[in-house]
Amino acid sequence: LAEKVAHFVQKPILSLEHKLFPDGESYIRVEGDVKGEDVVVIQGLHPPQDKHLTELLLIADLLRDLGAEKVRAVIPYMAYARQDRRFREGEVVSIITVLKMLKAVGIDEAYTVNIHSPWVLENAPLKVVNMDASGLLAVSLSQLVSEKPLVLSPGKKGLEMASATASVLEADYGAVVSRRDTVTGEVSVELDADVSGRDVVLVDDVVSTGGTMARCVEIVKGRGAGKVLVACVHGLFIGDAAEKIQAAGASMIVATDTVPNPYAFTSVAGLIASQLT
Amino acid sequence: LAEKVAHFVQKPILSLEHKLFPDGESYIRVEGDVKGEDVVVIQGLHPPQDKHLTELLLIADLLRDLGAEKVRAVIPYMAYARQDRRFREGEVVSIITVLKMLKAVGIDEAYTVNIHSPWVLENAPLKVVNMDASGLLAVSLSQLVSEKPLVLSPGKKGLEMASATASVLEADYGAVVSRRDTVTGEVSVELDADVSGRDVVLVDDVVSTGGTMARCVEIVKGRGAGKVLVACVHGLFIGDAAEKIQAAGASMIVATDTVPNPYAFTSVAGLIASQLT
Repeated sequence: LAEKVAHFVQKPILSLEHKLFPDGESYIRVEGDVKGEDVVVIQGLHPPQDKHLTELLLIADLLRDLGAEKVRAVIPYMAYARQDRRFREGEVVSIITVLKMLKAVGIDEAYTVNIHSPWVLENAPLKVVNMDASGLLAVSLSQLVSEKPLVLSPGKKGLEMASATASVLEADYGAVVSRRDTVTGEVSVELDADVSGRDVVLVDDVVSTGGTMARCVEIVKGRGAGKVLVACVHGLFIGDAAEKIQAAGASMIVATDTVPNPYAFTSVAGLIASQLT
Repeated sequence: LAEKVAHFVQKPILSLEHKLFPDGESYIRVEGDVKGEDVVVIQGLHPPQDKHLTELLLIADLLRDLGAEKVRAVIPYMAYARQDRRFREGEVVSIITVLKMLKAVGIDEAYTVNIHSPWVLENAPLKVVNMDASGLLAVSLSQLVSEKPLVLSPGKKGLEMASATASVLEADYGAVVSRRDTVTGEVSVELDADVSGRDVVLVDDVVSTGGTMARCVEIVKGRGAGKVLVACVHGLFIGDAAEKIQAAGASMIVATDTVPNPYAFTSVAGLIASQLT
């Protein structure tokens, strides 16, 4: 991703020596002169989140120490963005702590893609530009679906993304409202649209363990849907998430490259590059 | 360890709810009122270092946010302390970045035990008290060795610790100078003392992968040593480190509880408590 972005912005890419010591500590070394430079670090915070966060903090602090004039961080996937408020008394608001860390090592500005909680950025301790890759994803989907499909989003939160995707595909959209039983963990799904005989595109911002998505695929297939395509911006695919989704009946999985994953059929490099110039 | 320290300082211990989300992110919640309190957090930075570091940062930031007046961190094992200077151009001085993070979340003071590089604390961004547990370890060793043994340290850096240990045991001491070939990784050992028929105590501040220590045990056993006891403050015991050391001929392994490990025969709780009052 860094190489693609560097190509788009026509800037040199700096080598970074990185290794792990046998005890698991990260070693970072910059190979080149960064004195007085405007340096952009591209480091996602996908799993293992804490290791990637420490690496990013070490890199940024090092660049500052080596005399970089400006350090900007591109964080294609932002970790800890779900814990964005104090849901229960005494809880940590993790995303604020993470943003505070980024600022503490001298990061001037950060860029991220489809952050889970864009509203936290309004009061963030540093400027964070949030980019939307749903249009990009929709365009790549338009090459994969033959007829106008029905676009569905698992949960109400994804409705906006379903709407944006449907707009590009000139298709209808709706939400599959999923509920997770807090005791049994069982995911139940409500669906009003008639999916019988129709191709369905299920879109969401992130696929993590894939439980909800797999259940949604199962439901729409059970109601007679044709081909079911699963699309997301951030493809974390924890454990056997992709296998679960495929086993549920999805004919294809599509994601972007905000997180390294085997289903990254479209790149956010151009989107990122357009913000850096 | 926290429970023992709380007992020694006669202060209540506060419950912390901690869990991992399926994607690997940490969740932290404080159960109780910390407003206006002087709170001590006990969190080691042993492996997985980056996860423990993130947890500590989240906890401290949360305590500050919940109104704690003072936040002190006890870090029995300090990670990233070996990367304490720029050995090669462009390298990160990781320990400084870590200390900077601790300060950024509002930690007023930190306490650690036998940090690898005590000299970095002189110019640290926050006050860090470094405690020496070698005396404590020596006292527990004195109950385990029947005759006056020969105390040896792998490498010159541990000579001071060997000397302190020997002083408590009223024994002789020396260094086993070990060298790791940078190409083959082979560890060679030089030893001047006559170990034939003598019990040997091998002491070091930290046992990590155990490679050097196992080689030292092998050498002294090969030269006719009697019982060989391995002692360290920080028992990381990465992978099969303990098994390697035992297979090399060590009859016993002794460590403190700065890192949770099955060989923690002595606790640093009292040492820590003595600094907190």
